[in-house]
Order: sequence, then C-alpha cells, then structure tokens
Amino acid sequence: MSGPRAALVIVGSELLDGRWRDDNGPFLSASLAAHGVRVAHILVVPDDLDVLTADLRFLLAGEPDVLVVCGGLGTTHDDLTTAAVAATLDRPLCEDLQARSWVEEATRRVSERRHVPFDELLARTLKEARLPEGSRALPPAGLAPGYAIAAGPTRLYVLPGVPGEIEAMWPPILAELARDGLLSDVAVRTVRAYGVGEIQAQPLLDEAAADGLDVAVTASAGEVTVVVKYEPGDERAAARVERLVADLEATLPVFSSDGRSIDDIVADRLRERGETVAVAESCTGGGLGGRLTALPRSSDYFLGGVIAYANEAKMELLEVPHGMLGQYGAVSGEVAGAMAEGVRATLRATYGVAITGVAGPGGGTAEKPAGLVYLGCSSPQGTVVEERRFAGGRHQVRRWAIVAALHLLHDAIVS
Amino acid sequence: MSGPRAALVIVGSELLDGRWRDDNGPFLSASLAAHGVRVAHILVVPDDLDVLTADLRFLLAGEPDVLVVCGGLGTTHDDLTTAAVAATLDRPLCEDLQARSWVEEATRRVSERRHVPFDELLARTLKEARLPEGSRALPPAGLAPGYAIAAGPTRLYVLPGVPGEIEAMWPPILAELARDGLLSDVAVRTVRAYGVGEIQAQPLLDEAAADGLDVAVTASAGEVTVVVKYEPGDERAAARVERLVADLEATLPVFSSDGRSIDDIVADRLRERGETVAVAESCTGGGLGGRLTALPRSSDYFLGGVIAYANEAKMELLEVPHGMLGQYGAVSGEVAGAMAEGVRATLRATYGVAITGVAGPGGGTAEKPAGLVYLGCSSPQGTVVEERRFAGGRHQVRRWAIVAALHLLHDAIVS
Repeated sequence: MSGPRAALVIVGSELLDGRWRDDNGPFLSASLAAHGVRVAHILVVPDDLDVLTADLRFLLAGEPDVLVVCGGLGTTHDDLTTAAVAATLDRPLCEDLQARSWVEEATRRVSERRHVPFDELLARTLKEARLPEGSRALPPAGLAPGYAIAAGPTRLYVLPGVPGEIEAMWPPILAELARDGLLSDVAVRTVRAYGVGEIQAQPLLDEAAADGLDVAVTASAGEVTVVVKYEPGDERAAARVERLVADLEATLPVFSSDGRSIDDIVADRLRERGETVAVAESCTGGGLGGRLTALPRSSDYFLGGVIAYANEAKMELLEVPHGMLGQYGAVSGEVAGAMAEGVRATLRATYGVAITGVAGPGGGTAEKPAGLVYLGCSSPQGTVVEERRFAGGRHQVRRWAIVAALHLLHDAIVS
Repeated sequence: MSGPRAALVIVGSELLDGRWRDDNGPFLSASLAAHGVRVAHILVVPDDLDVLTADLRFLLAGEPDVLVVCGGLGTTHDDLTTAAVAATLDRPLCEDLQARSWVEEATRRVSERRHVPFDELLARTLKEARLPEGSRALPPAGLAPGYAIAAGPTRLYVLPGVPGEIEAMWPPILAELARDGLLSDVAVRTVRAYGVGEIQAQPLLDEAAADGLDVAVTASAGEVTVVVKYEPGDERAAARVERLVADLEATLPVFSSDGRSIDDIVADRLRERGETVAVAESCTGGGLGGRLTALPRSSDYFLGGVIAYANEAKMELLEVPHGMLGQYGAVSGEVAGAMAEGVRATLRATYGVAITGVAGPGGGTAEKPAGLVYLGCSSPQGTVVEERRFAGGRHQVRRWAIVAALHLLHDAIVS
C-alpha cells in the first residue's frame, strides 16, 4: 500500500533499561494505521540530546508526512526533547504567550493539589512554554502543552509522554490530518482460529499474498489471527478477500471472521441470550475474572466467582468434597469439574468455568508437571473437562490457560 | 555513563498497526542495561525490505558495539530480515550446514505435532538455513536458528521474534559478550514512594543530578520510582547516593529503598510472619488476586478469595447484609469493610482485602461517579476503609485501585 507515511519517536531513558514499557507507540500507530497512514518506524530513544537530534535528522531525511514525538517535555533536567527539536530544525526557543497562559493555569492546579507554592513551581514549569520559533502550541491535558511545527514537507507534532495526556491530545490532531486529506478509509478483514499453528494457515496465505493481497498473520496463546487490508473501493480485492475467508473457514477451526476477539464474542453471546457466567480459579488467581470484567458493562453477564487457591478455599467456597481432593489431587479433571459445578450452583449462573493447574515454575511433580492445567465448564447441558499441557514460564502458562477457558466457555455457549 | 553501546531492531508489521505489542525490546534492553551496556535505540520496523535495509545502515553507521535484530526469520513471504541483512552487508546467502541440520530436526518435530508431511514442510523451512556469508549459526529454540555476524566494529546478532525463543537464545549471547569484556557490573539503587507526585521529588533529584549522579524518575499508579546508577567502585558516587536515599526517605512516604516492588514486599512480609491473605473484589473482577498470585510460591500466603461482582455474590459468598447493600449501596465504605471482614472470616486468613467501586466508563451517578473506589482491609487489629477517586478510563481506575489495595495491605502488615 502506498499513501501517507508516518514515523514515531518515543523519548524516555526509562524505556531503554527495563523500568518502563511504551504504550504510546502502539496507541498512535494503531490509530494512524486504522486511517490508512503507514507507520514505517517507531523509534524509542533515551533522553540524550545527541542521540535524539541524530535520530530526528535521520527520520526527517525520509520525508514522512507526519512525525510524532512523545515524551521529554517535562520540567526535570533530563527533559531534552524541545532542545533537540530546536537544534534539529535550527530554530531558537521563544516563550509562546498561549503556551504560557496554559502552563500558568495548570501550574496553579498542581500547586493547590500538591501543596507546593505557586511561584516556586512556576519557576520550574515555565520551561514548558518555551517552544521552537514557528511552533503552534497545542492545549495540554496535563501540565505540558504540545506543539506542531512544519519541518520541510513533514508535519511534526511534539507531545508529552504521559499516555493519558496523549490520548486526550490526539483526537484534534487526527482531525487536522483528516482536514488536510492525509487520512483515508481502510477496509480490514480479520479471521481468528483457535487450536492450530501459523504453519497450517500458511499455504492459503501465501496464495493470497501472491494474488496481491496485503495479508499478515500472528499467533498467540493458541490463537492464530489473520489480518487482510485493502482499499474499500477495490472490488477485485474484496472478492479475493471473501474467497480467502471462506477457504480459511473451511480449513481451520475459525471462531471469528468479523474482527471480534474471543472476549467480545463471549460477552455478546451471553448478553444476547440473557445468560450469566461465574468463575472458579486456582492457578490463575483471578485472572480469568479480571479478563471477563475488562470490558465495560460486564455486569450484564458476569456474576462473580471464587479464587480457590488453597484446598480449604476449594472445600469451603465451592463445596469440592475433601475426599475428591485427597483421591485425585487439586490438579485433576475431577476437581476442575467439581469447581465449575460448585461455582455455577452457588452463584446460580448459567455457566461455571473453572481452572486448576500447576503454573510453575515450582510445585510440579513427575506425574503433574508445571504447565499441566485442567479446565472445567458446567452448563445446563452438563459438565465438560479438558486437560491441557502448556509450555513456558508461569506468566505464559496462566495466560494460555485463561484463553483456553474462554474458548471452552464459548464452545459451551454455542453448543 | 560511557561504555559499550547497543541498538535493537524489532521487525514485524504487526507491531506497527496495533495488532501486537513488542516484548523483545524491553526484555533485551533491560538485560543489556543491567550489564552496563547502554541501549541508545530500539527501532521497531515493518517487514519491508527497503525500510529495514535503510534502518540497518543508519544504525550501523553509528558503530554500536552490539546490534540485535529480532523477528522476520520465519518461512512466510513477509519474512525479509535475512535478505535485508545480506543486502546491508553486501553478502550472498549460502546454505549453512549446521543451520540445515538444526532446521531439519525442528521441522521433523513440527511435522509430527501438526500432522503436516515432512517434505512439504521442509521445502518451506529450508529458507531458514540460508544465512549471509560469514555468519555463525546459533542453535534455535523453536524452528529458526539465529546467527551472529561481524559488521565492521559491530557484533550483529539476528534472532527470531518469538519472545520465548529469544529468552532461550539470549543467555549464551550474553555469555559471549561477557567473555569479550563488553559487560560490566552496574550498581543500581531504587527508591519507591507512594502517594506523592514526581514534582515533590524533583528538587532533591535536580540537586543529585547537578552533583553528577545518573538519576531518573518515573511515576505510575500513584507510585514514584527513583533509580540511580553508578559504577560499583565509585565510592564518592556511592556516598552521594546514600545521602540522596536518606533525603528522599526523610521527605517522601518511601516504602522501598532496596529495589523491591510493593508486590515483593507484601509477599516477603507475609511469608516471614507466616501470615495469610484473602481478597474480595468487585470492580477489579479478580485483578488483585491475579496480581498477588503472579509471583511464584504465592500459595505460601495467598489463600484465595471471592469475586463479588453481582450483589447476590456479595451476600451469598461474603455474608454482606442485604440491608447494608440497600442502605449504603454496593459502592460504599461500609460494604468494603464488610467484604474484607467476610472473606477474612470465611477463609480464616490473617488479612482480608476488599475493593468495590465504579470502574466506569458507565455505571456512575452524580453522587458515585466513575473512578470512585472504596478499599477495605480487615486484620487482627481491626478494619480500615479508604475512599479514593481515580481519574482515567476503566483500565486505569482498576489498575490504580489494585495498587492502592496492595499499599493498604502493606500498611496493615507493618502496623
């Protein structure tokens, strides 16, 4: 795909030594890609004037239509982004009157909230009102204003690094880009399958790519996701995409071909049917409940559940019989089924979903190694139990188990 | 700090359109930084031969000591990393015998697991045994081998993009770098405070930076984290760091000055004292339990809990009186306290911790807006309740509430 190109620079030493993970690059690139702008670089750089200046020069030399720089607009000694922009564009820094009034206003609020004298604070924050000559100040969502400035053919936007502030400041910039004709509609088709590898989708995808489709595939936690993009008006491409989707549906265990995730589908189905779900979790410790409630309005169908980490909790809250725990062990299909039935009965839910396993790295035995997980789903149709063996560390085993539980629930709902 | 420099290139179009988030950049940069190697760039680029080649040239022109490239070593049409490396270094691709035998072995395993004929699969995977001339193949952790190759003064390592494979392939590379004298010890001091803003730490940090300390600060979910790095032998720096730590402890509500997170500290304290905790969660849906069980061996102190999303669950599983829910509402200090007491009693835990609130974006009222959260902690010393108002969206409110609950628990343990 041709069309407008963008690059992102994410500034912050904390992003290069493991202290912190960048949220802004994924947020901004997703937003731009959804509007037909190809992001060709996300560059994460430390608060280092020389590195930052060299990187800005390199990216501007590629003449992207849009360059967004995030972070390093704060008041501390290591906030050097504006100095680097000024050096790159060879512009002096001048106090911007509009930016100054915004900074004063924000400083007053912080001064009150944090009980720091206004004048003392302003002496530090006024730095944020000094912008490279020729900038247009953008209203702040926190303390620091952003700014827009032309750099040859490139629209350069400089924003603070706080994700909440970026999310608030981004929509007006997107509207500007739309007004200037840089954004376009992109048709996207997403197909998701569960329980296969990328390699099984590959022949169909290679064929589609050879026919000129922009097709991409990723695999995660047992799910394979295929994404195809095309121009909305391109009827030939649209027809070829339909054929690919039909071929994938015929070949693979596809559970979604309209873009929805397994979380979305489970939520929609439960809401449509007026049904409810409750969870009983051991090795995931609440992670399945956390995921089921990540979507807004999940109280429409999620009743609650039990985190039964200790055996006593399994007996006390889920009425799993003591004898069953002794005979089969807490990590067993029998207990997974009893946990699912127990929580379904206690909370009078349509479905009860249970997870019990050895997340590791310790706690495993030869017979029941780390990674062994039993899933249970109890429904009006009866109780289904699944044994799975997941690879990887504690975090990965728990993540795969949660995704597997969502699919088990999905199967129970549709069957 | 001078010393060796590194750059990372993370390849994958899925990382630039919101489909996927990079885990490899944070993992590798944290590992390198912990061994005294300064990572000056993490560059995320699409599977695009021209972009990739231009970016490799740019980074190599800076002559870093180490350049690690991750991703794009697979078998599909869009895996172009090796072609880009070959073009950048102007080397032909040749089949490597060692790589070929590894690829054959891995292909046999996949062929069996995925029920795809070996020959058909090998025809696709053999691409992964063709390396730029002069490469040294590195044993694969999955299908694709990695390779090392000299690029002028730079050690270039090319690895697959699957995080689990990177984690397995990285330690021998780190050992190589150590053997070549590129790694060094770094002394790190980390101080964490809860309930203040960065701005309150700033004067002390500015002073320390002016004295030449390498000091950095981040803020997240109500916690401010200060990290100072110095050379282990530098006694002057070590003394200045001690003074900074003492000043911070005297000025701010510091809860950790030895590097441990609040999760670590809570876990250690409970284990030391032989005490236990149980949780009762409403708006966080299991997220607090999920976080308390993220650490290995959490069964030493975590008993389980109740996810009481619906009012019925609060009554049924926690014995919160119906009248209390009617009089004060589910989101109230009274109910938070009753939930904490209920789960503590039911699971016979030393501490019961509860969260009830309006995560939003919907469900709020003028009196009880989205972001209003009540926390409760019940202990042998009695029950404490806290009212908080968090800003931001659903995800952020839930995250802040979980951190606040951990700190409330911490206060109860130490008091």
